Amino acid sequence: MIDAAPYATVLDADDLAAAIDACGDCVQSCTACVAADVAEDDVKEMRRCIGLCSDCADVCGATARVLSRDLRDDPLLVQRLLQACVRACASCAEECAKHAPHHRHCAICAEVCRACEQACRTLLEAEALEELNALAGG
Amino acid sequence: MIDAAPYATVLDADDLAAAIDACGDCVQSCTACVAADVAEDDVKEMRRCIGLCSDCADVCGATARVLSRDLRDDPLLVQRLLQACVRACASCAEECAKHAPHHRHCAICAEVCRACEQACRTLLEAEALEELNALAGG
Amino acid sequence: MIDAAPYATVLDADDLAAAIDACGDCVQSCTACVAADVAEDDVKEMRRCIGLCSDCADVCGATARVLSRDLRDDPLLVQRLLQACVRACASCAEECAKHAPHHRHCAICAEVCRACEQACRTLLEAEALEELNALAGG
Amino acid sequence: MIDAAPYATVLDADDLAAAIDACGDCVQSCTACVAADVAEDDVKEMRRCIGLCSDCADVCGATARVLSRDLRDDPLLVQRLLQACVRACASCAEECAKHAPHHRHCAICAEVCRACEQACRTLLEAEALEELNALAGG
Repeated sequence: MIDAAPYATVLDADDLAAAIDACGDCVQSCTACVAADVAEDDVKEMRRCIGLCSDCADVCGATARVLSRDLRDDPLLVQRLLQACVRACASCAEECAKHAPHHRHCAICAEVCRACEQACRTLLEAEALEELNALAGG
Repeated sequence: MIDAAPYATVLDADDLAAAIDACGDCVQSCTACVAADVAEDDVKEMRRCIGLCSDCADVCGATARVLSRDLRDDPLLVQRLLQACVRACASCAEECAKHAPHHRHCAICAEVCRACEQACRTLLEAEALEELNALAGG
Repeated sequence: MIDAAPYATVLDADDLAAAIDACGDCVQSCTACVAADVAEDDVKEMRRCIGLCSDCADVCGATARVLSRDLRDDPLLVQRLLQACVRACASCAEECAKHAPHHRHCAICAEVCRACEQACRTLLEAEALEELNALAGG
Repeated sequence: MIDAAPYATVLDADDLAAAIDACGDCVQSCTACVAADVAEDDVKEMRRCIGLCSDCADVCGATARVLSRDLRDDPLLVQRLLQACVRACASCAEECAKHAPHHRHCAICAEVCRACEQACRTLLEAEALEELNALAGG
């Protein structure tokens, strides 16, 4: 879809596609992890996991949509949203990793969140975004 | 993730995973198609496409989330939402197909929407959903 | 906003605005109710409430967005989505009402869901939607 | 709903409720503004407005949901998301204001976005969030 857009892609198309996919995967994984957490016997120990996964699903969902549009409209927004998304994924991955030994859904979710965190970091570190922000006076 | 949940899967796990993935793909494809439509020279001819793709992205996003949870909570809601999703995908695919010859993003989006429509129809036709609805008095 | 749109409003503008507002309120109320449920001591008894409120938030969110667009694009989708939304709100209200005596957030949420269910029913019963569907061959 | 939650509210409850409401209003206003922009005769001049309003709706939607949960789970995420939301609202308001003289929906949307920007800034400036971040080592 990225190559089919009538506007120039600001960021590397492969990196961008990878981040959009990773955010989409994270929405699914975090939503399913919340539902599974709630059904576990140790649900009281899963409260922070439920909260962080819920937040992560929402932030990744918004990030995937924003990344699917023309990024030149507001590169500084893209940067800030990616920073929020990196944080959401990192926090969620860290919490899920604690429960990974006894809940397989948390083990999977931690991995998906880490992959999304990395994909978003790659975009954040792209010089193109930096340059664009400079041009936009961001 | 589906197999890792602590509750029984009502529907066939492969069909369910396929529908969740298809809905996720449709959110991305439709969101990107809207952004591309808006940037086209013939944007005035793309108005219905923009509207239907926007609706389809929202309905598919909600459907993906609901399908990621315990479907026994309200099978009739699942059924009604799948019916709305099938309609959103079918309408969007039909409109995108009209523009497929001159806009590659519409050609791709039409295909993604058709796949999502089919994946949701498969779930709707599952006997399990029917039986569950009967049990729930839906 | 409805009166400021450059296209004709299909449904009664007041009814439409009321439904959009009610859906928006329901997203907030259901999201907050889930977070509160998870933090309660009797969280295990709140599982179905968590599931139904989560679904309701997602369906109401999509419905509010679709209702904010030009409804002539696909009246049958609007109808089906409203039917899903009515069901989501009714189920959630019914479950929340059970917990209303001991959880004030459930009492509030049940009320907000009932109001949203009613606002969506009003739109569904509007002759205009029926006529439009007939015209569209829906 | 905020007072009915079983956990302590970190931020001022009135400020928090105001921000959640403002984000909810912004989702509606921006979604409707996009639909109206697309239908205008000068849609080609409205492209940046469509992009920024679409982004703003998504970011405000995620922010409203995150703010409706227990903010102690990850105060740094709350901070970063509010920063993204402030930016989204400010950019959208600025662009909408340019079109306010000839499109009433843009005039309304600019006002709603400004109110949301301000409500989010109020939360960002709260000492409580700062202190919590310090405690969390954010």
